[in-house]
Amino acid sequence: MKQIALTGIKSTGILHIGNYFGAIKPALELARRYDARYFIADYHALNTVKDPAVLSHCIREIAAGWLSAGLDPEQVIFYRQSSIPETFELTTMLMAFTAKGLMNRAHAYKSAVQENLDKNDPDAGINMGLFTYPVLMAADILLFDADIVPVGKDQAQHIEMTADIAKAVNFNYQKEVLKIPQAFIQEQVAVVPGLDGRKMSKSYNNSIPLFAPEKELRRLIMRIVTNSQPVSEPKDPQSSLIYQLYRLFAAQEEQASLAERYRAGGMGWGEAKEELFRVANRELSPLRERFAALMADPAGLDAILARGAQKARPIAAATVARFRKAAGID
Amino acid sequence: MKQIALTGIKSTGILHIGNYFGAIKPALELARRYDARYFIADYHALNTVKDPAVLSHCIREIAAGWLSAGLDPEQVIFYRQSSIPETFELTTMLMAFTAKGLMNRAHAYKSAVQENLDKNDPDAGINMGLFTYPVLMAADILLFDADIVPVGKDQAQHIEMTADIAKAVNFNYQKEVLKIPQAFIQEQVAVVPGLDGRKMSKSYNNSIPLFAPEKELRRLIMRIVTNSQPVSEPKDPQSSLIYQLYRLFAAQEEQASLAERYRAGGMGWGEAKEELFRVANRELSPLRERFAALMADPAGLDAILARGAQKARPIAAATVARFRKAAGID
Repeated sequence: MKQIALTGIKSTGILHIGNYFGAIKPALELARRYDARYFIADYHALNTVKDPAVLSHCIREIAAGWLSAGLDPEQVIFYRQSSIPETFELTTMLMAFTAKGLMNRAHAYKSAVQENLDKNDPDAGINMGLFTYPVLMAADILLFDADIVPVGKDQAQHIEMTADIAKAVNFNYQKEVLKIPQAFIQEQVAVVPGLDGRKMSKSYNNSIPLFAPEKELRRLIMRIVTNSQPVSEPKDPQSSLIYQLYRLFAAQEEQASLAERYRAGGMGWGEAKEELFRVANRELSPLRERFAALMADPAGLDAILARGAQKARPIAAATVARFRKAAGID
Repeated sequence: MKQIALTGIKSTGILHIGNYFGAIKPALELARRYDARYFIADYHALNTVKDPAVLSHCIREIAAGWLSAGLDPEQVIFYRQSSIPETFELTTMLMAFTAKGLMNRAHAYKSAVQENLDKNDPDAGINMGLFTYPVLMAADILLFDADIVPVGKDQAQHIEMTADIAKAVNFNYQKEVLKIPQAFIQEQVAVVPGLDGRKMSKSYNNSIPLFAPEKELRRLIMRIVTNSQPVSEPKDPQSSLIYQLYRLFAAQEEQASLAERYRAGGMGWGEAKEELFRVANRELSPLRERFAALMADPAGLDAILARGAQKARPIAAATVARFRKAAGID
């Protein structure tokens, strides 16, 4: 039997190629080796997105985005967090076993306090959704008996907290009510540079949207700032932003061949950008088409997510029933 | 149309006659004038009761206790909190609209910090269930569109917090997603003295259990400490603990008649205790019998609570659906 991997997907913002190479592709790769359960964390999003039109649109866009990028809903259980009411019941149960001190030490809360300008009221502007986020996340994970949760290094604390809470439950009832999950730190995940050379990120305004129309994709690539080396001069591929992006989309031989042209001289930056556009558009065109088709058919998209929820709920219900029985609430 | 009144019932500990006169009877009185919804707060109890056998027994006992005392499940919607999963989803929703600062100021949390002996870690031993208790309570109330929530003065803060959170939701979505409840402070509720003259309370170990067997009831009443006034001497009814308890159970004329006997002299304390036992046992005998019958029929008891949940869930589901629609999660 395969081990179980669980991944939560934030439903805020537009997907860019940094997400594609840094999160989506590694997650789809993982889904081949694990019994994978992926969910859209729409109630986590409610903490920051208070506009219903924006939230509703984001949820659809993220679902369509992952499906377009290759998530196979027959292979992966793919559902919305909000379709699994057991999540919230388990959250309430876990609250009784979570030390408040543990939450005081959560990174996201601590950095929100640090960023707070009102030093007389360090909690100003912080809502309970942010403060209790780690408990909701623990419920997301524990509900589905996850063995591993793939996370970046900065997220490892959440999984440690989840394990701590689950251990407190199991210790109290002297049985394995909840499975203890482990963080699966993905070390080699690509850090994708943005158009300005810094890490691609929404907040830097340097990203290439994953589903940008062809024209827009070309325009963004052509905007990449280059140095003033003349066409004839040999160029270093490794230090070139264009080449770094090219490598993500190109086959081994293509990479070698373009590197050769860099070093040989005689190729201008415009030409290199054309090469980058060609391979990027080659990979992204079919995604873009699938995305457009999914977004044009909201009922079809909802049906995919509803089928996922149908598969997920019996697992969730079993966990809650196990906990209820252990707790004497049944 | 009647206004809606909601009451949460703690499911910890054994009912005593202080609960009967101070909480149950006023609540049943209220149920005549309001559309009443009463629930057993079993998930609140999980914060303190970690033994499954104790919790499970307490829940049954409290349900049987209220039913025996006269709660009519045809007139009142009577359910277990744990049977209404919408409670926990609404809790999660409300977290996003609850300022952490509001929770920092909650009385129950503040007194837990104050009682904490570890001054270096004021949160030591405090769990998130206690800290987030006001949000869960807000969900309990808001889910059922309560107009009023009958509470003691010390509980009024919870209702104010509930109203604050609901207003934040309504303001954000610019519509009445949630009904704003009001505290209904019951001023004249009887404070029942315990066997030692202090307020009757579990923690003082001075209480008369509501369902004490007849022999035990007599034994406890006979244990009341009296002064050394001789039989012949006239006595003051108002300052007599026996008389204070007698008044709770006796009709007007009986009260007047016993007061007369006090003042006339010639009645000893033993005789007064017999009178108290007589009226107490007269009122409590039928309750005791109903209680024994309900406790002997767990399936019947569960069926009553399940019918209550059946009536409650559509109301709860409508509230959550309204919130989901407003939030863009639907």
